[in-house]
Amino acid sequence: MTTKTKTTTKQVSSKRPVSRRSTNRGGTTTNRGTSKKIVVKQTAPQKSSSKKEGLRVVNLGGLEEIGRNMSYYEYEDDIIIVDMGFQFPEEDTPGIDYIIPNISSLEPKKEKIRAVIITHGHLDHIGAIPYLMEKLGNPVIYTPKFSKALIEKRQAEFPNAPKLNIVTVGYGDKKKVGSHFDLEFFGVEHTIPDSMGVVIKTPIGNIVHFGDFRLDRDEKGNIYRFDEIEKVAKMGVHTYMMDSTNALVEGEGIPEKTVEKNVEELILGAKKRIILTTFSSMIVRMLEIIRIAEKHGRKVAVNGRSMRENMDIAKNLGYMKFKETTMIPIQEVNKYKDEEVLILTTGAQGEPNSGFTRIVNGEHKHIQLKKTDTVIFSSSVVPGNERSVQNLTDNIARQVDYIHNSKLMDIHSSGHASKEDLKLVIKTLKPKFLMPIHAYYHFRTVARHIAEEAGMKRDHVKLVDNGDVCLLTKDTLEVTGEKDDTSYVMVDGLGVGDVEEVVLRDRRMLADDGMVVLIVTIDRRTGRILKNPDIISRGFIYLRDSQELLREIRRKVRGIIGRLPQRQNVDADYLKSLFRDQIGQFLYHKTHRRPMILPVVIEI
Amino acid sequence: MTTKTKTTTKQVSSKRPVSRRSTNRGGTTTNRGTSKKIVVKQTAPQKSSSKKEGLRVVNLGGLEEIGRNMSYYEYEDDIIIVDMGFQFPEEDTPGIDYIIPNISSLEPKKEKIRAVIITHGHLDHIGAIPYLMEKLGNPVIYTPKFSKALIEKRQAEFPNAPKLNIVTVGYGDKKKVGSHFDLEFFGVEHTIPDSMGVVIKTPIGNIVHFGDFRLDRDEKGNIYRFDEIEKVAKMGVHTYMMDSTNALVEGEGIPEKTVEKNVEELILGAKKRIILTTFSSMIVRMLEIIRIAEKHGRKVAVNGRSMRENMDIAKNLGYMKFKETTMIPIQEVNKYKDEEVLILTTGAQGEPNSGFTRIVNGEHKHIQLKKTDTVIFSSSVVPGNERSVQNLTDNIARQVDYIHNSKLMDIHSSGHASKEDLKLVIKTLKPKFLMPIHAYYHFRTVARHIAEEAGMKRDHVKLVDNGDVCLLTKDTLEVTGEKDDTSYVMVDGLGVGDVEEVVLRDRRMLADDGMVVLIVTIDRRTGRILKNPDIISRGFIYLRDSQELLREIRRKVRGIIGRLPQRQNVDADYLKSLFRDQIGQFLYHKTHRRPMILPVVIEI
Repeated sequence: MTTKTKTTTKQVSSKRPVSRRSTNRGGTTTNRGTSKKIVVKQTAPQKSSSKKEGLRVVNLGGLEEIGRNMSYYEYEDDIIIVDMGFQFPEEDTPGIDYIIPNISSLEPKKEKIRAVIITHGHLDHIGAIPYLMEKLGNPVIYTPKFSKALIEKRQAEFPNAPKLNIVTVGYGDKKKVGSHFDLEFFGVEHTIPDSMGVVIKTPIGNIVHFGDFRLDRDEKGNIYRFDEIEKVAKMGVHTYMMDSTNALVEGEGIPEKTVEKNVEELILGAKKRIILTTFSSMIVRMLEIIRIAEKHGRKVAVNGRSMRENMDIAKNLGYMKFKETTMIPIQEVNKYKDEEVLILTTGAQGEPNSGFTRIVNGEHKHIQLKKTDTVIFSSSVVPGNERSVQNLTDNIARQVDYIHNSKLMDIHSSGHASKEDLKLVIKTLKPKFLMPIHAYYHFRTVARHIAEEAGMKRDHVKLVDNGDVCLLTKDTLEVTGEKDDTSYVMVDGLGVGDVEEVVLRDRRMLADDGMVVLIVTIDRRTGRILKNPDIISRGFIYLRDSQELLREIRRKVRGIIGRLPQRQNVDADYLKSLFRDQIGQFLYHKTHRRPMILPVVIEI
Repeated sequence: MTTKTKTTTKQVSSKRPVSRRSTNRGGTTTNRGTSKKIVVKQTAPQKSSSKKEGLRVVNLGGLEEIGRNMSYYEYEDDIIIVDMGFQFPEEDTPGIDYIIPNISSLEPKKEKIRAVIITHGHLDHIGAIPYLMEKLGNPVIYTPKFSKALIEKRQAEFPNAPKLNIVTVGYGDKKKVGSHFDLEFFGVEHTIPDSMGVVIKTPIGNIVHFGDFRLDRDEKGNIYRFDEIEKVAKMGVHTYMMDSTNALVEGEGIPEKTVEKNVEELILGAKKRIILTTFSSMIVRMLEIIRIAEKHGRKVAVNGRSMRENMDIAKNLGYMKFKETTMIPIQEVNKYKDEEVLILTTGAQGEPNSGFTRIVNGEHKHIQLKKTDTVIFSSSVVPGNERSVQNLTDNIARQVDYIHNSKLMDIHSSGHASKEDLKLVIKTLKPKFLMPIHAYYHFRTVARHIAEEAGMKRDHVKLVDNGDVCLLTKDTLEVTGEKDDTSYVMVDGLGVGDVEEVVLRDRRMLADDGMVVLIVTIDRRTGRILKNPDIISRGFIYLRDSQELLREIRRKVRGIIGRLPQRQNVDADYLKSLFRDQIGQFLYHKTHRRPMILPVVIEI
């Protein structure tokens, strides 16, 4: 199936406030009430008749959500793309697997695309590659070697996706792309090895596009790789595209060394077996924890597919700073004494079927929790997962004595720069303009405050929305008013873009109050009912226990037909609308629920 | 409809770990994967044949969830109940309004119930009253006057609920109840006026049941109402039932005075209009904010029904410490200059149709946001509401310049005592036993750590589950192993207890992948198909755009019927199972989705 987005829904409007889905205190997911959205007819990408000269910058995602990061830069006949991530679904997109960037504006000009730059290998930056590359003409990808391995691993899961042309780049590497772009890559600190940013040298000046990054410090407070940022500063910065994910987080980031020190203390303090869970994307931390475990004489077994695969890649690429014999297969855990083992596992969010959930539920082949285990959550709770993490934690608390999480001590640190760190980078880069990216609007207003505190003029910080076409000249950065379509393209099973708002709306309605199918068989000539109406209901009321209600519905249905004029051709649509209205009202009156009423009239 | 819970689902097991609903990072609500639960057959309340003497204590809710707080105490022929709250729905209970305590164990012995004590007027402590009181024989309710007003206001919304018999009690009041209980009420600090705890004097000793509470301090660090706790301590405490909601929060609570001071600074700093939002349940804070606004020459308009009603109650009961003229009706806001106005509004969680959402969406009759407005969130984000609060905040950030929230400064404080405060109370009360309540299991294990730090013996802190029957004698607190049924009783529309697990499971399935109804009309005698199969689908794929798939389904259906042995009676159930399996497989193969397949065979 192909990407088609005829009339789709734009999830977050650009200027107009939009009322959103229903939520209520218990964190329920139901959608009673209005889920108001702006429906935009997709039009062909707008072209200004007399196109002004300059560099065009468009963010196709990442500005009004977490994820779906993708931006492109266009100068005359050259286009380069930075990142191609997906977004995990929203509460009001039930059943959806992911949301991917809408490339309808790029497809018509795909022959101009010279390269795709991938800053690092997290899914919010690479996840849409298998879905989009073919449609974009499969251009070359520049990315560091760790990301390359992750992209290729993922691509292999899509047998029909094209073979990719990936060129590995390192920090400091330069690439000339098309006639107008010179790229220079630089290193940044993040939670995955080989993360980078890119300086895009263009005729109008240098754009610095950081991927996700943080400032990380050693024990003395020296910032790792700060020289890379100073080097970029020396090139001169026209516009700084700034990861603003943590703009609301006060102060400096918690150094990874502090996390490691605290985890090391917990490891030292644990008398028996240790089970440590973190995100499988926190590869830097995992490698470090294995090193620490080794230092204290523990073997490490990795549990969970994604984590094992990432460790395999790290191993193949030579990122392991410990003996190979430190790692043991999960099935050999019980050959060692408890105090000699650390189990590193996925499932910190309580995901069903994840490695940790299986252990905690007693469903794991090799590992059962023991009272003497120490469980360490080196992770945060991703918003929306509170309840599942709470359940996981409670179920662990019933089985083991020691649980440590990042609420209780600093054993997790985010991969994104916080307020003071952002300020420092701005002061160092001294950009002419700044565009906060990777963050909701409110976060970006706070990023603007930060930039002002760092000495920038307020109107040199541009808060734009997904799809806004910005025009950059030597001395200006202007939002043109043109807009690329960025309405949701949803992946559900094998379908890409074929789940439309009407389908989602139905799913939400079905989830709330279920549905009732009324099947009425009538004689085409007489209009009389031929057999007792069939009634099927799901998600409404357990009808087997509600025989009286069932009888009343049947009586109502017969009544509606009985009141029709006799011996006339029956208008099935009219009859259906009568059923919908009258049975709907009747059921609401009886139950105060509004199941979807689906009448079927079979004329024989 | 009556409460019936034949085979229902026990949401959280007592000892066995339970794997939970699916969640994924985006905070989606879909339930792909297994939602495994333990189904318990309801049995009559267990009675030990030779009932041991002593005080029985059972918590029917509040131990494995937030809300649904209800406990009862039984001594020979006397029972008293403390609190009767509801719980907001879970992610895996779509469409449900609330979950209320299961009283199937209490109903058979309702003639023993002597009184219901309501500690304060929040919904997680009073919300189930309209549903349960009649079934419990409508016993007398003891509660302070503010709660009384809230309970009565709510009861008036249920025309069929009985008239309640509420006796107002004050701090220090004593009541003899039945032959075995003497009650003495004492004051606690919480976010609603008139919050109280109760000392239940029984033949085996004094049980101290705190409702929700916190320690709150004045500018000098003196704790308000600490003398009440000291007075209770002097009576001697057998068991302390401890609100452990905030056991994971380090240190002492943020004093309400600090919150007020910070809010006052924001009010002073605001040059134009102020819009302040908080929970309508934070009545103490609202009253204080109005006082501060008055002090700085601002009129206050209250927006949102629940907040206005709570303010009316406060006014009627004489809780206002400011001039009546300070309050103005919302429709008169525009008669005043912006700098003379503060709007107090509900909707801090971005609830649809709430007062604030209507303002932000430009749908409010009297108030539109202005660039110069200052918006203050004196609230926290309730887990599960992150996305709706983010949307609300973003939509505000697009319209006004100044937004302050409790992430940026201390302008919210919780109503529950944190770690050090709990420790202080334990040290003061010196209870023989402690039972953490109002908290998930993990929280309660931390509460146990706190109690140990306060000098208690580990095995004198009892972590029990919902429904566990505890037997208290002069020197013991023992979990008997008996268990009251605490499976979910759900309220959905007018129905109480009639939404069973099968209905919820269907709702979750429908939300994930939708459904397909196949209607096949066949000739009863020949088994031949009489007309083209009707296909209805909702929430699966927009079939109008998938004519080819539709044709293929019809072809499959015809094929299945065609392969049946000819001229035989058709077994409709067999035919349906063929449709379910084969069409289900076909659609999964085509789409990787698993819609619910509902075949209907009509024999004519």
